[in-house]
Amino acid sequence: MAKPLTIYNSLSRGKEVFEPLIPGKTGLYVCGPTVYSNAHLGHARPAVTFDLLYRYLLHLGYKVRYVRNITDVGHLEDEIEESGEDKIVKKARLEQLEPMEVVQKYLNTFHRNMAQLNTLPPCIEPRASAHIIEQQLLIKRILENGFAYEVNGSVYFDVEKYNTRYRYGILSGRNLEEMVANTRNLEGQEEKKNPFDFALWKKASPGHIMQWPSEWGMGFPGWHLECSAMSMKYLGEVFDIHGGGMDLQFPHHECEIAQSTAASGHSSVRYWMHNNMITINGQKMARSLGNFITLDELFSGNHPLLDSAYSPMTIRFFILQAHYRSTLDFSNEALQSAGKGLERLMKAAALLPKLTASATSTVDIGALEENCREAINDDLNSPILIAHLFDGVRIINQVSEGLASVSAEDLDKLKSIFHTWLFDILGLREENNPAGNSETIRQLVELTLKIRMDAKAKKDWTTSDYIRSELARIGISVKDKKEGCEWEMD
Amino acid sequence: MAKPLTIYNSLSRGKEVFEPLIPGKTGLYVCGPTVYSNAHLGHARPAVTFDLLYRYLLHLGYKVRYVRNITDVGHLEDEIEESGEDKIVKKARLEQLEPMEVVQKYLNTFHRNMAQLNTLPPCIEPRASAHIIEQQLLIKRILENGFAYEVNGSVYFDVEKYNTRYRYGILSGRNLEEMVANTRNLEGQEEKKNPFDFALWKKASPGHIMQWPSEWGMGFPGWHLECSAMSMKYLGEVFDIHGGGMDLQFPHHECEIAQSTAASGHSSVRYWMHNNMITINGQKMARSLGNFITLDELFSGNHPLLDSAYSPMTIRFFILQAHYRSTLDFSNEALQSAGKGLERLMKAAALLPKLTASATSTVDIGALEENCREAINDDLNSPILIAHLFDGVRIINQVSEGLASVSAEDLDKLKSIFHTWLFDILGLREENNPAGNSETIRQLVELTLKIRMDAKAKKDWTTSDYIRSELARIGISVKDKKEGCEWEMD
Repeated sequence: MAKPLTIYNSLSRGKEVFEPLIPGKTGLYVCGPTVYSNAHLGHARPAVTFDLLYRYLLHLGYKVRYVRNITDVGHLEDEIEESGEDKIVKKARLEQLEPMEVVQKYLNTFHRNMAQLNTLPPCIEPRASAHIIEQQLLIKRILENGFAYEVNGSVYFDVEKYNTRYRYGILSGRNLEEMVANTRNLEGQEEKKNPFDFALWKKASPGHIMQWPSEWGMGFPGWHLECSAMSMKYLGEVFDIHGGGMDLQFPHHECEIAQSTAASGHSSVRYWMHNNMITINGQKMARSLGNFITLDELFSGNHPLLDSAYSPMTIRFFILQAHYRSTLDFSNEALQSAGKGLERLMKAAALLPKLTASATSTVDIGALEENCREAINDDLNSPILIAHLFDGVRIINQVSEGLASVSAEDLDKLKSIFHTWLFDILGLREENNPAGNSETIRQLVELTLKIRMDAKAKKDWTTSDYIRSELARIGISVKDKKEGCEWEMD
Repeated sequence: MAKPLTIYNSLSRGKEVFEPLIPGKTGLYVCGPTVYSNAHLGHARPAVTFDLLYRYLLHLGYKVRYVRNITDVGHLEDEIEESGEDKIVKKARLEQLEPMEVVQKYLNTFHRNMAQLNTLPPCIEPRASAHIIEQQLLIKRILENGFAYEVNGSVYFDVEKYNTRYRYGILSGRNLEEMVANTRNLEGQEEKKNPFDFALWKKASPGHIMQWPSEWGMGFPGWHLECSAMSMKYLGEVFDIHGGGMDLQFPHHECEIAQSTAASGHSSVRYWMHNNMITINGQKMARSLGNFITLDELFSGNHPLLDSAYSPMTIRFFILQAHYRSTLDFSNEALQSAGKGLERLMKAAALLPKLTASATSTVDIGALEENCREAINDDLNSPILIAHLFDGVRIINQVSEGLASVSAEDLDKLKSIFHTWLFDILGLREENNPAGNSETIRQLVELTLKIRMDAKAKKDWTTSDYIRSELARIGISVKDKKEGCEWEMD
């Protein structure tokens, strides 16, 4: 029997066999974007990474509840020091819009880009502003358990107190003593007992544009709180997998663990998964460095750093060509080479239906399926999986050129492998797009012609002629050949 | 100077010149769908109607804040008597999903269909479940003003009391005395002082899957409340235009007026606009009548009542060919004729760039622009506007055939008219024919199923089973029925 799916758990720092809490089901929570500007390269990687995981879990037959949040309130400019303006409020001021107009605008772009990358939509996309009550209830539980304190209309998480009972820093490997030694006291943070305490509820100034009533006064939730509240609401107090970018490990995910544990007495996530970071020509991406590239710019080539447009499937393939836990460097050379690789794969996939089977195989399909499965089961090792598909490409090209032969059984197997691994699981697809429809039409016509061949073999000329004339009516003309037939659409 | 935009105000029952509250800005609120099933014909009409309004207001240079809500909680099966299960909770039970999974699923379909119809996305799409606090605050105001009462954990609007100060029925033309005479007392409604009182907050039974804490106990908001709360939050306590289908006038919009007025002391909507209803072959659309057609079915032709697929632009054009306040009857004949009309328009538009200018014009472009504007300014009279564009089509065809000539200046004018009115304002666009593909798919599937029926008639079960399983592989599932079969594409 094949080895089961193992995934690297950032918490235990090792690969573990994936066993869901409830057999047959999987709960998956992934941190989504703060929607205050256009989706960029940094959004593409977690989206594709966890789409691969989602697709593979579905392929394994799990009923997956995939939740990805949308942050639309509470994310302040300085995430670490929890200061500055709310990112969305700031954008609303600059664009002279209502904050929720900003959210809608960039959410629409994000959705469009995600569809272009062929990522499947999550089952639920909860928004922070839509779960204020749930967040307030969670704060109350944390207060009741003694791990938070109210000061002047704000509520802060008491990290030191928490650390006496549980361990703060368990995910990121930090320890509180070192943190104490390294922190300095900050201006305007004097409400906090300790600088590393973090806000659960922030008092709003009277002019603050997004605020809600609470028993601590008018305010808004802290950034970290939404993920604890919404993951527990939709997936339960213990659930299977939590994913996100590695930059979220600290403080965001560390604070999530602390919040959930402080409320419920235990941690809620069984497997933590983190995709590694991207760089551009070896540098971190940052607006200040002039190398900040949005997905729309990437798809259109409209950026000084880009030599050409790169299609969404090229980007998806490029991301999948690296293991999700490695860093990934974007450069024109690397993207162009990914484009060529993808083209080779797709050309071979397009050849597949045109191959004719022989009596025997001179090629070995046997291990291919197993190799693909083994690769993905090894912590979603997509680069190895893709390398195996290129073995399939070589076979297809050899058969097509008459340098090798393949039996009908092996040909079916090869088709099924490409269909499953390339299209269903890696989520790649033909671009210039009515392809989806064209592919269905091709398959339907070929099914119809197959039935017609069978009818002819049985000398059922009525059926055979009927099919031919009906196809003509639909606009598909059939030409009978010595072996089989050819067809053409008007 | 041209006459200004006038719109029919359902409240005053007459056309009024549109003057926004704040010069240069317009606030527009439209009732959106309850997302518990696939979008259908009934959703297309308000979507296209208010998209036309939105596009024209943008064309006039207004900064428009267009809000369309998503109902994801509180809409009970029996809208009038406020009884039965919550529509989304019921679907969640049937599909074994979390309610928010149901919401997400059908919201995604709705968005896809709306994009197919080329409707512009609203600026904000607020959801009822995301504004529980705002709704609770509104209930408190209504209670404080004495127009609601709490019974046993629920809060009801006191219609009789409201009617002593304001007028209940002002929009729908009902009067309370007649309503009193015509209502009967209902089972399980004994909490209400009067049967026509309506729920602002409903107490939830312990097992109810969507409920939130409130000062009246655990519960959920009444269906009518969200629109009052969210329109006032995002557009202010007085705003310009509220739109929706005519079937929403009573009780939904009547209750909205009562709620907003009871809270603020004045009505909040300046212009009420309602699109008229659709029928199918002269009948009301209803699941029980077997004439319930979803937009996906319409676009694919996959419904027993449809002779072929109709493209999204054909549907959009068909809707615009009727004035929004007239009823609109869908039939194969009418849709086919709309398809032909649209084709003529689009062919002419495609000819435009190929026309060559002459020294002088033998045709009169002069009044065309003015006629288009006059038509739309007359309460969005899109059928008249389209008729004027057909005048343009005649001119284009004459010039193209050498039967008339057009000066460079007039040719520019003609191009600008088509660009502005056909594409920007009517929102029509070239379809490079995904509908053609869908239609081919439909015909091929039906041919295949016909062959399968014949095979079954001959008791050739091998062929019949083969076809069914091959179709499944292509992604087309077949359900056998007493008479014939139904099919669906993944």
